Amino acid sequence: MNQLKRTDRSIKKLPNGDSLHIQTFTVEGTRPGPEVYIQANVHGAEIQGNAVIYELLDFFLNHDFIGKITFVPCANPMAINSKSGTFTQGRFNPVTGDNWNRNYVDLLSLPQEETGLDLESFVNKRLSASEDTIKTEFKRELKKSYETCWTNFCTKKGPSENRALNMTLQTLASHSDIVLDLHTGPKATRYLYAAEFEAESAKNFLTPFFLIIPNKFAGAMDEGCFMPWIHLKMAFQKQGRKTTFDFESYTLELGSEECLSSSEAKEDAARIIHYLHSKGLDIENPPFIRRPEQKYCLLKNYKTYYSPFAGFVEYLKSPGDSFEKGDILARVLNFGSVQESKDLKTAWSDIPALDTGIVITHAPTGVIHEGNEIFQIMTHFKIC
Amino acid sequence: MNQLKRTDRSIKKLPNGDSLHIQTFTVEGTRPGPEVYIQANVHGAEIQGNAVIYELLDFFLNHDFIGKITFVPCANPMAINSKSGTFTQGRFNPVTGDNWNRNYVDLLSLPQEETGLDLESFVNKRLSASEDTIKTEFKRELKKSYETCWTNFCTKKGPSENRALNMTLQTLASHSDIVLDLHTGPKATRYLYAAEFEAESAKNFLTPFFLIIPNKFAGAMDEGCFMPWIHLKMAFQKQGRKTTFDFESYTLELGSEECLSSSEAKEDAARIIHYLHSKGLDIENPPFIRRPEQKYCLLKNYKTYYSPFAGFVEYLKSPGDSFEKGDILARVLNFGSVQESKDLKTAWSDIPALDTGIVITHAPTGVIHEGNEIFQIMTHFKIC
Amino acid sequence: MNQLKRTDRSIKKLPNGDSLHIQTFTVEGTRPGPEVYIQANVHGAEIQGNAVIYELLDFFLNHDFIGKITFVPCANPMAINSKSGTFTQGRFNPVTGDNWNRNYVDLLSLPQEETGLDLESFVNKRLSASEDTIKTEFKRELKKSYETCWTNFCTKKGPSENRALNMTLQTLASHSDIVLDLHTGPKATRYLYAAEFEAESAKNFLTPFFLIIPNKFAGAMDEGCFMPWIHLKMAFQKQGRKTTFDFESYTLELGSEECLSSSEAKEDAARIIHYLHSKGLDIENPPFIRRPEQKYCLLKNYKTYYSPFAGFVEYLKSPGDSFEKGDILARVLNFGSVQESKDLKTAWSDIPALDTGIVITHAPTGVIHEGNEIFQIMTHFKIC
Amino acid sequence: MNQLKRTDRSIKKLPNGDSLHIQTFTVEGTRPGPEVYIQANVHGAEIQGNAVIYELLDFFLNHDFIGKITFVPCANPMAINSKSGTFTQGRFNPVTGDNWNRNYVDLLSLPQEETGLDLESFVNKRLSASEDTIKTEFKRELKKSYETCWTNFCTKKGPSENRALNMTLQTLASHSDIVLDLHTGPKATRYLYAAEFEAESAKNFLTPFFLIIPNKFAGAMDEGCFMPWIHLKMAFQKQGRKTTFDFESYTLELGSEECLSSSEAKEDAARIIHYLHSKGLDIENPPFIRRPEQKYCLLKNYKTYYSPFAGFVEYLKSPGDSFEKGDILARVLNFGSVQESKDLKTAWSDIPALDTGIVITHAPTGVIHEGNEIFQIMTHFKIC
Repeated sequence: MNQLKRTDRSIKKLPNGDSLHIQTFTVEGTRPGPEVYIQANVHGAEIQGNAVIYELLDFFLNHDFIGKITFVPCANPMAINSKSGTFTQGRFNPVTGDNWNRNYVDLLSLPQEETGLDLESFVNKRLSASEDTIKTEFKRELKKSYETCWTNFCTKKGPSENRALNMTLQTLASHSDIVLDLHTGPKATRYLYAAEFEAESAKNFLTPFFLIIPNKFAGAMDEGCFMPWIHLKMAFQKQGRKTTFDFESYTLELGSEECLSSSEAKEDAARIIHYLHSKGLDIENPPFIRRPEQKYCLLKNYKTYYSPFAGFVEYLKSPGDSFEKGDILARVLNFGSVQESKDLKTAWSDIPALDTGIVITHAPTGVIHEGNEIFQIMTHFKIC
Repeated sequence: MNQLKRTDRSIKKLPNGDSLHIQTFTVEGTRPGPEVYIQANVHGAEIQGNAVIYELLDFFLNHDFIGKITFVPCANPMAINSKSGTFTQGRFNPVTGDNWNRNYVDLLSLPQEETGLDLESFVNKRLSASEDTIKTEFKRELKKSYETCWTNFCTKKGPSENRALNMTLQTLASHSDIVLDLHTGPKATRYLYAAEFEAESAKNFLTPFFLIIPNKFAGAMDEGCFMPWIHLKMAFQKQGRKTTFDFESYTLELGSEECLSSSEAKEDAARIIHYLHSKGLDIENPPFIRRPEQKYCLLKNYKTYYSPFAGFVEYLKSPGDSFEKGDILARVLNFGSVQESKDLKTAWSDIPALDTGIVITHAPTGVIHEGNEIFQIMTHFKIC
Repeated sequence: MNQLKRTDRSIKKLPNGDSLHIQTFTVEGTRPGPEVYIQANVHGAEIQGNAVIYELLDFFLNHDFIGKITFVPCANPMAINSKSGTFTQGRFNPVTGDNWNRNYVDLLSLPQEETGLDLESFVNKRLSASEDTIKTEFKRELKKSYETCWTNFCTKKGPSENRALNMTLQTLASHSDIVLDLHTGPKATRYLYAAEFEAESAKNFLTPFFLIIPNKFAGAMDEGCFMPWIHLKMAFQKQGRKTTFDFESYTLELGSEECLSSSEAKEDAARIIHYLHSKGLDIENPPFIRRPEQKYCLLKNYKTYYSPFAGFVEYLKSPGDSFEKGDILARVLNFGSVQESKDLKTAWSDIPALDTGIVITHAPTGVIHEGNEIFQIMTHFKIC
Repeated sequence: MNQLKRTDRSIKKLPNGDSLHIQTFTVEGTRPGPEVYIQANVHGAEIQGNAVIYELLDFFLNHDFIGKITFVPCANPMAINSKSGTFTQGRFNPVTGDNWNRNYVDLLSLPQEETGLDLESFVNKRLSASEDTIKTEFKRELKKSYETCWTNFCTKKGPSENRALNMTLQTLASHSDIVLDLHTGPKATRYLYAAEFEAESAKNFLTPFFLIIPNKFAGAMDEGCFMPWIHLKMAFQKQGRKTTFDFESYTLELGSEECLSSSEAKEDAARIIHYLHSKGLDIENPPFIRRPEQKYCLLKNYKTYYSPFAGFVEYLKSPGDSFEKGDILARVLNFGSVQESKDLKTAWSDIPALDTGIVITHAPTGVIHEGNEIFQIMTHFKIC
């Protein structure tokens, strides 16, 4: 059996004198190999990833593999512990409104005086180094640079809560080759976000759906983690050297928020193991899992629908369902339009599909206001 | 086809200059008969009752019956329109924390100078009147008294938001013979609350479960509505006359909050029609509905469980499920207890049943804090 | 210098694996004497009491006195750490809506099988004991009974969060002779709540205002603490013995929520020291403080005003201000009433005083909805 | 006396059947002249602008001027009506967390197929037109383009609540020459945001402080309004023509949130009248107002401080106060650090100034968490 190592870090002091902590759990394989970083629950209600981490811990403690895996369940204590009514309001910072998964940094786009990292000089000194050497040294530089950046920020402004969380997580992930950020949708099927450069590899997660995002930064963890490697690759390219650093990071969406299922967690874990095996972790007895038909589309074809009606929603299509343009996806009940002389049926309004596609998520509530998000839809998808 | 009558009342002015309204819809039968009052959605996320009112409207507009039914869907606009995150925080007033269904009044327990109603004198003047006459006159007095009470309150203190809502709804219901308040549980089965005096009649709702509450006031709408009749009966009894005024009011719980299902609404409506038919509305072609095995218990045997653990919950029993004392109802995942040297399984804690019983509701969230409500359980139940 | 003793208790485990704690700080005088318990910040935004506890600690660590004082700043970590927007929403449990200061228990009104305390038998065994002996033994019984009660509750239902907090605090206070619960109003002057039986002694706090509440239980800490002594006194009286157990508990209101002032804290502390000195703590060099004109009224004459208007409020009277019936206390701006053809001044509505009195508190917001609490007013007051 | 014209627009339908509206009030001068648009209260707790609009309405209805002024008090009903506890949580959308003042659009940076506006072609057709003609026609095009853009958005995705608000307000402002967006800070002095190109003109508001922001788009109303004119100017420049379209838009910060003062509103209004007079509205008898010493800095020198401590804050510097680097701005009380053996004073931590500067705002709460925003500071300021 492999060894488990736990480390606790204070992430936020509270006014009453207590502190919130982030716990990391590390399992090391029998020999050196890829370093993997897996976090869950950055959004407070998105808890299934914790159960998946439990299953992965259970698996990797008991199976041979090469490399090292760092697990961070409960990656955002502020979000997890935050209630408003019985539900968990952990999507955004309750003080500032900032979405917890849109505050990461694209380290190498920051001014050099903040990060202490001169990419051009780093590259110029290693024009003929081996990729392995470069990778090792770049990871070391990254970690140092995140720390410098954070120190500089705190010295000038103090430890912004949003920034503290994201800097801590990005620093923890900085020496990894693979980063997985486990989320869920509102009411959702299983899907994931993969950058263009990793679209092929993404298939090995065996999820029924995936979205292809640009190789760009838009504030999320997966992007914050892969951007330095994209900058690095481009910097070498500028010097005329083509490189193929194998770094990948993904956001995985494991069903619906507020839900935890151990049996589904075992399947989610099996899919992740399948992917990690494909990335060279040389895993003993990976569980068999059938490759499903996989559908994917570009992010620009992943559309959010906003409800033109206010009222009480009956969802007619579920996450994972396909539909044709014009199909009724949901209908909304509102008594405001019921007049004495008119047909009672005016109480109902239909929400038709504006495109042909697949429901990936819908809102978790039955009470919808005019202009609320109601569906996220995959359109113009391809099958593989 | 019967006629629909709609009336709108302003219930709250808003700071920006708009107002919120309560809409009532009335359908009158072909001949005089029992008056029925049905409201829904006093708690903002409990929306299924609106769909049930839609089905009942559709039915009663198109079927002969005697009497009159007043429907108030969306009975609490303040709660319905209130969001915190994607979910609807409409269980309590967001400013004061007061549960919207615990602010009603027991009119006749208030000082006479506030209500203007002298019950003793009312009774003494009608010692030999017929019950029908007394009932008609008492309803008239009740309505007047609610209005007096509210006017007095406003004159002395101003129009408290909580009080305004409850006074409006109680006044609207004051001339009825039957009052139904449509709620839902968090994640819940179908059940209802019946007072001791109406326990027999309650069976005609054909719900699988019901709870017997004392003939007492604890702040809810059903209680606020039946208490005047209990006071009246006791006042006559004091004068040596036994009376049998047929007034009934109930809280019906129609499944889970945030959910709306038309097919289930048709069944919920059918059950209500069955009950109303049994109360003499002489309904044309009431839909057939099979009487289920019905289980009930006293309120004192309806138990709330609070979680001794904090973490992420996997519910192992669903609303409607039976269990034996000691059965595991749920288990809770918390990584805080995972130590390097210990068994990984310490991450999970079991929540065992402390009694033999039936799950009526469980919490709608997967993130539970130490001491949060997690289950509501029927114990020592009987079958009929 | 006296010794400081600190004890930390876990009060709530959090889903992410952390816990919240209550810290108690105890200072013991040079000789035995009255036991005092002082807590602050049960409502999350009411923080001035913490600064007062700091000043009291500083004083009592450096001055001779007899007896023992237990301080509990930050008595409600759940409330203190809870944010919604920049303000602290710590008035009610964000999950249940329950006001944190309305959940205490009147221990001896609970069924004996829950508390394990048979008051009648306790009294009968001590009919001729000295009051000192009775007091000492009653405190011991109280503490044991709170613990029994809590154990029984947990065994049957699990550790309800609300109950856990209140049981912990009541248990901590159970062996005291004096209990002070430090609160603040919304925007408020300095005042306090005193029960009828302690109305005379209350004057020694030297606050400009105080309210006389009945010797009854309505859910608050001060009431929860004095009720057992009232039950005890009545039980002896029933047996024909008149007793004069010197127990007092108060709720002190130290200005406005969200505000902390050290200079005012020194004055607040001086007033408390003055009171404690009057209760026999024999304090070395108590700070001099001038006795102000003191105004008080019965709770029934302490009136809440609800705004009949929605809009933006300009407060014309401040906490502490006197006014005559008909004076304008505030005016409310709402553009909804501005019509093209009418006088622009219709945008403003006046809120007149419905009584002659004194403003004790007003709402802390400038955005008022129809029916929101806007003023708390002392009427029919007396001067001493 | 000038005429008042009121128009109401539905901005959001609510689930219960009601709707929220935006009211606009227009006053036209005696002759044509500049068009002015003034809105207030986009953030729900920032209400002083409503009182200022009242004073401006009162003034302009009764004084001659040239041009036309459109007033939109209560510009964001969703934010204004939203409560969480007694305070107004109206800074961000409670469902999505989006800051209500960061969702505007930079119309001409959107794809032409969405806006229907071809700027290059617009310019090429008017290379030799007069600036007046161009301005008039550009305003007409802008309005049409906002409407096209919104129609396209709704057709493809539905009417996003955030977008609906911002599109409505930008469309209402689109035919103006001057746009003022009235906000407040948390606890704040009077200041404003001016773009570089209007830095000189900004002085005519006579506020004690102002900030110079880049001529760029960052999501706010003032930026969303001036960006089209910057794009237009650059498009002409590209064709070799230098233009000087006189368009200006500003965000004014009128003190602290949750506060309304009529006497300060009269002064705020007088400052705005002074500015409008300087812009050619030819106002009859503008009130005299003394020009204060004015301090300003670049946005990059306007710094947010985050608290390194959690606890209860005593603010030692107020909005408007100057300080030197190292001065103590606030101190924070936390009992967590009080140990039995240590100095009691460890309970307090100082927050020193990291720069020399002026406090512009501080947090409105006394309960601060590690990493919360605590001060906004003007550094490297200049005096004019």
